[in-house]
Parts: sequence; C-alpha cells; structure tokens
Amino acid sequence: MTQLQAARDGVITPQMEHVAREEGVPAEQVRAGIADGTIVLPFNVNRPHPVIRAIGKGLKTKVNANFGSSADHEDPEEERRKLEASIEYGADSVMDLSTGPLLNDIRRMSLRHSTVMLGTVPIYEAAQKRGVYAFDEAIFDVVEGQAREGVDYVTVHCGVTKRSIARLDDMPRVCGIVSRGGAVTAAFIRKTGRENPLYERFDRLLEICREHDVTLSLGDGLRPGATADATDPAQLEELFILGELQQRALAAGVQAMIEGPGHVPLDEIAANVQIQKRICHGAPFYVLGPLPTDCGAGYDHITGAIGGAVSAAAGTDMLCYLTPAEHLRLPTVEDVRDGVIATRIAAHCGDVVKRTGRARERDRAMSDARKRLDWERMFELAFDGKKAREFRVNSEDAERAVCSMCGPLCSVNIDNHTDPQYAAEAAAHKRRMFGQEIVERVEGVPKGTL
Amino acid sequence: MTQLQAARDGVITPQMEHVAREEGVPAEQVRAGIADGTIVLPFNVNRPHPVIRAIGKGLKTKVNANFGSSADHEDPEEERRKLEASIEYGADSVMDLSTGPLLNDIRRMSLRHSTVMLGTVPIYEAAQKRGVYAFDEAIFDVVEGQAREGVDYVTVHCGVTKRSIARLDDMPRVCGIVSRGGAVTAAFIRKTGRENPLYERFDRLLEICREHDVTLSLGDGLRPGATADATDPAQLEELFILGELQQRALAAGVQAMIEGPGHVPLDEIAANVQIQKRICHGAPFYVLGPLPTDCGAGYDHITGAIGGAVSAAAGTDMLCYLTPAEHLRLPTVEDVRDGVIATRIAAHCGDVVKRTGRARERDRAMSDARKRLDWERMFELAFDGKKAREFRVNSEDAERAVCSMCGPLCSVNIDNHTDPQYAAEAAAHKRRMFGQEIVERVEGVPKGTL
Repeated sequence: MTQLQAARDGVITPQMEHVAREEGVPAEQVRAGIADGTIVLPFNVNRPHPVIRAIGKGLKTKVNANFGSSADHEDPEEERRKLEASIEYGADSVMDLSTGPLLNDIRRMSLRHSTVMLGTVPIYEAAQKRGVYAFDEAIFDVVEGQAREGVDYVTVHCGVTKRSIARLDDMPRVCGIVSRGGAVTAAFIRKTGRENPLYERFDRLLEICREHDVTLSLGDGLRPGATADATDPAQLEELFILGELQQRALAAGVQAMIEGPGHVPLDEIAANVQIQKRICHGAPFYVLGPLPTDCGAGYDHITGAIGGAVSAAAGTDMLCYLTPAEHLRLPTVEDVRDGVIATRIAAHCGDVVKRTGRARERDRAMSDARKRLDWERMFELAFDGKKAREFRVNSEDAERAVCSMCGPLCSVNIDNHTDPQYAAEAAAHKRRMFGQEIVERVEGVPKGTL
Repeated sequence: MTQLQAARDGVITPQMEHVAREEGVPAEQVRAGIADGTIVLPFNVNRPHPVIRAIGKGLKTKVNANFGSSADHEDPEEERRKLEASIEYGADSVMDLSTGPLLNDIRRMSLRHSTVMLGTVPIYEAAQKRGVYAFDEAIFDVVEGQAREGVDYVTVHCGVTKRSIARLDDMPRVCGIVSRGGAVTAAFIRKTGRENPLYERFDRLLEICREHDVTLSLGDGLRPGATADATDPAQLEELFILGELQQRALAAGVQAMIEGPGHVPLDEIAANVQIQKRICHGAPFYVLGPLPTDCGAGYDHITGAIGGAVSAAAGTDMLCYLTPAEHLRLPTVEDVRDGVIATRIAAHCGDVVKRTGRARERDRAMSDARKRLDWERMFELAFDGKKAREFRVNSEDAERAVCSMCGPLCSVNIDNHTDPQYAAEAAAHKRRMFGQEIVERVEGVPKGTL
C-alpha cells in the first residue's frame, strides 16, 4: 500500500507521524495533504531510510543535491564523498545522476549509504544500455529494477511528446533543449517518428511505482535553458501534459510531484509557480534553480540561490541545488558543500515568507543571540556553524565579546550600553519581552530538523 | 558648480556625457535625472577619477564594496589590496569604512588609488578624535577636511534624531541599533540630551557639500539588524526625516541619495523600495543587502545577493555588497572578491527585470554562446571569466566541445545534432534568426561596461 493509498483510507502511517513531529504540524495535516496530492512522502517500501521527509504544501522547503558520474569523469569513491557531504550539510534529498559506465554500481552504493530519500533518472541507464534511439526497449525494465533496489523517486520526462515538440518547433528558442532526459527523448521522437514510451505507456509506469511506492517526479524535459526562452509555449505545453499525468497518477494511487525550470528572469518566477500550482492541481513543485541570469558560470550556486529563494517564497516546495561548477564541469566535494548551503539559505528565505519550517523562530533566536553577543549560540544557529566559527577563531577578537569588523566601535555593544531599556532590564527579562517563548520553541527542537 | 546645479541650468557636463555613453542612454536623460534628483553623479571637484558612474533611475544597478580597518585589525597594505580587488572585480563604488587609529592614512591612500567614486562615513573620524559623546565638536571640520581631500560622497546619519529615537523607544526591537554611525549618534543624543548636530546644522553640511560637489548619502542609522525588526516605526520615522532632508539638499544644489536596510524578509523588500521612492521623491536608493534571513553568517554574500537581487528588481539603484565575513570579522581580500561578484550577479538579475544596463542583451549573448558550445565567448561574458576558465581547464573535457558534467550525453550537443531546424541552418543564419543584432550590440560594447 502506498503512502497515498493509506492517506486516502484515512490511515496515518508511521512515516507521516515522523514528518509531522519534525515539521511541528498536525499529523492529520500531512495525511490530508498526501491524500489530495499537495504533499508527497517519497519512501520506497524496499529501502527504509532513517531521515524521512515530505515535500509540499505547508511544509518546510526541501533541498535536493545531485551527484553522480559522467562517462568523462567517473570515480565512485568521489561520488560517495559527495553524497556524504550533501547529507552532512543538510540536503533533504539526493539524486544520483550518474551517466557513466559504472552507473549501476554507483547507484547501488548510494542506496546503501543514503540516509535520506534518493532519486534517479532511469532514462540514463536505459540510454546507456540500448543507446539514445532505442532507450524504449529498456526503460520499463530499468524503472522496475531501480524500484526494486529501493529508489524513492524517479524523474521521468513523460511530457516530452510529439505534441510538445511540435510546439517547440513552432516557436524556436535561443538555447533549445537543455535537459539531458529531454534531449534524449526528443532525439528519439525525431529520429524514430514514434511517441515517447513513457507517455504512451504511462499506465505501465504507474503499476511499477504503485507496487514499490516510488514517487513520480514528472520532469521538465523542455525547461528553458536561457532566460530568453523562459515561460514559452513549449514549456507550458509540457506542463499541461504533466498536469494531466499527475491526475492519472493520483487516481492510480501513485504519488507525483512536478519539476520546474530552469533559466527564468526574476520577475517571471512567481508566475511560473502560480501557473504550475494551477495547472497541476497544487502538486508539489520541485525546481532546478531557477537561474535569473545566464551569466553566472562559476557562481551558479549563488544565481540559483537568488532564484530559488524567490521561487520558494512564491510556493515552490523543493529546490534542487546548483553548484559553482554548473555549466562548466562535474562538481567536486567542495562544490557540493557550497551548493547545499547556498540552497538551504534560499529555502530558508522562502520559509520565512511562507512561515513554514520554524524559519521565523530560528531567525528570531539568531537575532536574540546577536544582541547578547552570544557567539556560541550564533554558531549553533548558523547554516554552517563550523565555517562561522573558523572565521571568528582566526580573528583578533576571538576571545572578546565583539568582532574585528568594528572592534571597540561595535554598534551592538554601544547600543547595549546606552539604550536605557536594554540597560535597565536584565537580559533575561529582555528576552522574555521579545519572545522568550518563541526562542524556547526553537531551543527545544532537535538541531538537525531546524 | 555642482553636477546638480549644472543640470538645473540645462548644462550637460562631460561627466554626464561619459555616463550616457557607457550606459547607452541619451545624455539628456542623465541630465534630466540629475536635475530632478532621481540620479546622482558623485564626482568631487577636487579628485577627478577616470571611472565615472551615475546612480539612479533608468541606469544600470551599481555595486559598492566596503573596505577599511578597525582598531582590532589594522593593516593599510591589506586594505589597499581589498580596494584593488574591489575595482578589479567590478565594483562601481568603494567606501573606506576605516575606524582604527590609522584611518586618515588609509583614506588618503585610498583616494590616491581609487579609480572609482569613493565614499566615507565622517562620524568615524570625528568619534575617534573627540570620542562618541563629543563627536559634535569635530564633525563639520572632519566633513570639510575629507571633502577637500576629494571624497565623492559621505554617509551622514542625519535622520537619527530625538524624534526617531523616541519612536524606537516606543516600540523596542529584538536587535536595537546595528549601524555604527546610528549607534554613536543615538548614544550621543541619549547621553547628552542634545540633538544630532548633523540634523540640527544640516545647512552647514550642505554648504560644505555644495562647495566641493560632495554627494550626500543619507544614512539609515536605524536600519533593522534583524528580520524581526524590519519595516518598523523607527525605520520609517527616520525615512520620513531623510525625505525632508533630501528636498532641502536638492534646493541647495547638493546631490543626495538615500540608504536603506538591512535585515528584511523577502516579501517586504519590494515594499521597502516603494516606500523609499514615495517618501524620498524618487531619490536614488542605496541598499545594504538586504538580508532576508539572519542566519547566513559565513555566507552573507549569498544572503545579501538574494535580497539585493529582489531589491534591485524592485527599483533599488545601488547595492552595497556583503562578504562571507559579515557578522564575524573584518573581510579578507578573498572575501572582498566573493562579495563583489555575488553582488554584481544580484545587480544584474535586477537589471534583467528593469531592462537597464544591457543585461538582457548580455544574457542573450551568453545563451547564444552556450548553444554553440563556444567556450571562449562564455568566459568573456561570465562575471568572473577567470574562475570559469579555471574550472574548465582542470576538467577532462577542456579540449573537447562538451563539459564533464555530461560528457557524451551533453544535452546541447544531442539537441544540436537532432533538432531539424538547428541542423538545417548554418550557425550564422541561426544567430541571425535569434537576435544577431542584439548579440552584436553587446559585442560592440567595451567589456568593462557590461
């Protein structure tokens, strides 16, 4: 029985309980969200994993980190370290996007090591097995094999069809197709003249996913790869198809989320989220970036954080990270760390707006620590306390209350000494005045869930 | 004669001409913007500098980088390197915020070395000379001395007054006052019971600024230092005062811009910009951050880029950078570089929305290069081409057309080989189809001005 089928039957599973506890929301809210398709809880029945997260309405914005080899750079040990770094720095989800010859080994290693949900893109294995123009011969066996191994969700580019490709041809783009799965599927359709098998035989896909409770991540194979191409007819045509398929998945008891672009100017991001929510019946939205400029190469974790924060604030439910290596090469372990942290900051900025994930409480607690110049507490509440501590340890003021930015001219210190209210009140009273209750709410929460 | 007085007299100065040429806008537009106070062109008559920029309506979003010592970390040579790094990586403006004993030496060194506009915060020198509670005895001499030396703009916290402090006391904050100039001024008012001399004798300030054409940067001494304090009555009360003073400055022939917060949740940023534009008569808005979360320590260049991009898109005219060291210690040269690049990306994302600074053209040119897998052109158009090139040079695919992210499964390559339109057309024709004219417009522009 899938989480969705249980939810429909009014059953609150242990996984829903777990999510509710960590998010600080009623379990019934989680159940109801899964039942109506606005929340997914990817948890393959064949691979119980300890860190259980759900994605969707009313929940904290989640962060996914990709890793995996390509044929030109393949080192399973390095990929393992990337996976571990992703989890250490707080990714809620990981995707193994290996495309090299060792992709099966890397996936199996990843499934053994990942404590969080793990997603894949099965077309990579199918294209490797049979080639780009015959991936259809292998795709369902591949999905089934990966489902048995315990993959929690699969990205499938079911919306790249004759219809959406025709729309693309009607109004050509600056940068064409940039999704790998999308490019392979389009190449297959164009070369063979046949329909996308993942669209044509969608019911077969649903059977496999239902059996193992694999969540569908309906991929955006036609996502814009240039801000100039954003929100164009091809992108929207694909979204229309995904909205139809999401309803068929729900009807079949299969959980589904929708993937989103891509390269999008800042002022089109909220519209993209609103359109997705409208067309896809409130299904969880899982977004790559978006990148509000095309020129960020070397710093696309930052470009992605800008777009991701705006997207999360507008209602996006999971952000796929980008690393500094995006558009240039496969990321290193350090790139992965930088990408995860940047994306967690973006997700948190969105949560402040959505008032999810105790984000306001955490910010409040940090501001309170800052006012008290309580450095240990600041390190606890920072997204990367280790780095924050290192920065401070190497400065002249490591042993003093202030920091070397201002030294004796520290504004907080001056203000604390001269503000009559702050001076007159004991620190404890001050904290009570300004939300001790809220601060304590955060203090009681297990660190990993903040 | 100040740029403002010239503009009012209908005169287009050589500096206005220069700005118009680099921005690709009519000189008359620059003149009219300066005349009505919606543009400032900081250019002290005593220190002609080669890189001339204006800030305001219809122009590219500018980036300011701070450097300068504190009493606890003071190394003039290191500050020189930070200044040089700021300019190398594309800052349009720099501020020397030194507060240590050698602040005069560092400022004079900076004025000699800076090719771009340079701003200071004179209260630091005044407080160092006479102490926090007697800065009033030195402040006007300090402003005059720095103006003679060639400082292009000065941050003055004229809006921290008995009235705005009273408003702060009416509705206390989580994090009080976090601006150094604001904290010093408030401490002075509270301790001595006297009014802020920069407010009380504002006309004297205007005389000095008019004589040397120093632009006023009306500082937000009460900016929120916690997202929980954002957009509160004290912040707005100060803004009301700055709006009045901006009109008095304009009347006196003195250019003025307004500084803005600070720590602000993402969904309040646009409102902050709109309120500033309304209250301050469209004056240029120069914003620090804003930071849409308080927990970014170690990564506040990214947090600042998120807020800065949203702020720029909403109409902010200059972004002050933040570095990874913010809230922890004085930045290093590397921190400065990271801060400048992150902030330039943010400014550019805003320019894409505002359609200023040829940002859309640059993105289009990058996307075109990406489609053609033209790596040299991509490096030219990246914000930090050196870093982008290094990333690629160290990867397996440095000599091939694709990159190691995908290797042979490169989506762009697959699409280029199978898209009938792309395959059928020569690359040159394709480029013409998709905006060759726009691409050439960017190609003709001097690199430094993109």
